[in-house]
Amino acid sequence: MDYRRFNDTIVLRIDRGEEIVETLKAVAEREHVRLAEISALGATDDFTVGVYDLAAKRYDSKTFTGPHEIVSLTGTVTEKDGAFYQHLHLSAGNRDCAVVGGHLNRAVVSVTCEMVIRVIPGAVDRRPDPETGINLMRF
Amino acid sequence: MDYRRFNDTIVLRIDRGEEIVETLKAVAEREHVRLAEISALGATDDFTVGVYDLAAKRYDSKTFTGPHEIVSLTGTVTEKDGAFYQHLHLSAGNRDCAVVGGHLNRAVVSVTCEMVIRVIPGAVDRRPDPETGINLMRF
Amino acid sequence: MDYRRFNDTIVLRIDRGEEIVETLKAVAEREHVRLAEISALGATDDFTVGVYDLAAKRYDSKTFTGPHEIVSLTGTVTEKDGAFYQHLHLSAGNRDCAVVGGHLNRAVVSVTCEMVIRVIPGAVDRRPDPETGINLMRF
Repeated sequence: MDYRRFNDTIVLRIDRGEEIVETLKAVAEREHVRLAEISALGATDDFTVGVYDLAAKRYDSKTFTGPHEIVSLTGTVTEKDGAFYQHLHLSAGNRDCAVVGGHLNRAVVSVTCEMVIRVIPGAVDRRPDPETGINLMRF
Repeated sequence: MDYRRFNDTIVLRIDRGEEIVETLKAVAEREHVRLAEISALGATDDFTVGVYDLAAKRYDSKTFTGPHEIVSLTGTVTEKDGAFYQHLHLSAGNRDCAVVGGHLNRAVVSVTCEMVIRVIPGAVDRRPDPETGINLMRF
Repeated sequence: MDYRRFNDTIVLRIDRGEEIVETLKAVAEREHVRLAEISALGATDDFTVGVYDLAAKRYDSKTFTGPHEIVSLTGTVTEKDGAFYQHLHLSAGNRDCAVVGGHLNRAVVSVTCEMVIRVIPGAVDRRPDPETGINLMRF
């Protein structure tokens, strides 16, 4: 992993074998990012994404392996109880170019991942919402 | 729905039961947004997306229901005849994480939707294009 | 094709029959863009995307035709040996709204394409990486 910061933008390269969610957390904490918009592309051969089951209040997750190109990886960095909080969704195409995706739990980089972190001046908090079971953004 | 503006960036939370296209319009008009780039993630259980049929000059649209994670929602805010105009595309993964998507007509939020509206200083107009039947951006 | 620049943001319209990768290159070179984040939506009826085969160190690419809505087109502009370098991934939905995608080789616009180029102040270089066979970002 390596990165460089240009004013409000961090350009981050995540390397083969590194996990995306952990790496973003490490960089965001080191750079004191409180609020940001995330966008990335790259390749992964081992990732877990899920769909939220509102009745059960939990994510049903699936793990995919084999070569995939990350075609979208979007999300937000906010805070919960003053600590780093990320919310990312990923979609990726397999060897047939068929695309799967959902809420991102983890993704291991297979070739490279190029992430742009656009830092927004300010902060947004999260609070648990009893109705949905989700930590919702609070302003 | 609730939001907060940080300089050129509006961070918007759209809540369960609210429709995304209408909500973006309401916020953009209230905040006098003339030109912006849109990105969002979230969940929807009722949305209509379409593919443009150039020969017929209309969108063929399909409605999908059941739990879906929005894996990409991108687009632009511009103007047409001095009024708000949005152009959004959405893709979303279902319970099997299979992804469907297209031109967004409407999407009802099932859990939450987190949208980042990046306001661009300026304005871009639209004019109908007879060849394609689409309102194209004019500079 | 036509575009306008608003401070650090270029809003670009790519027209029916024009190829996206070539058009971005032409605009970025004319505007002296060294580092940027790319996002676009639109429609294509002829595009080639691939998945990287790490063992063979090459992309396995497929070409798709027929009406498709571009639901995500993300990437970076950087430099290699002082020259323009782009890395783009695309996903698109067909008539059934099924989404395919991968590393973008080429895409011909069928209706319109609306691209936002966010110029980042600075520059990032690329160097070939023997392990992956990819030109990786260097800071």
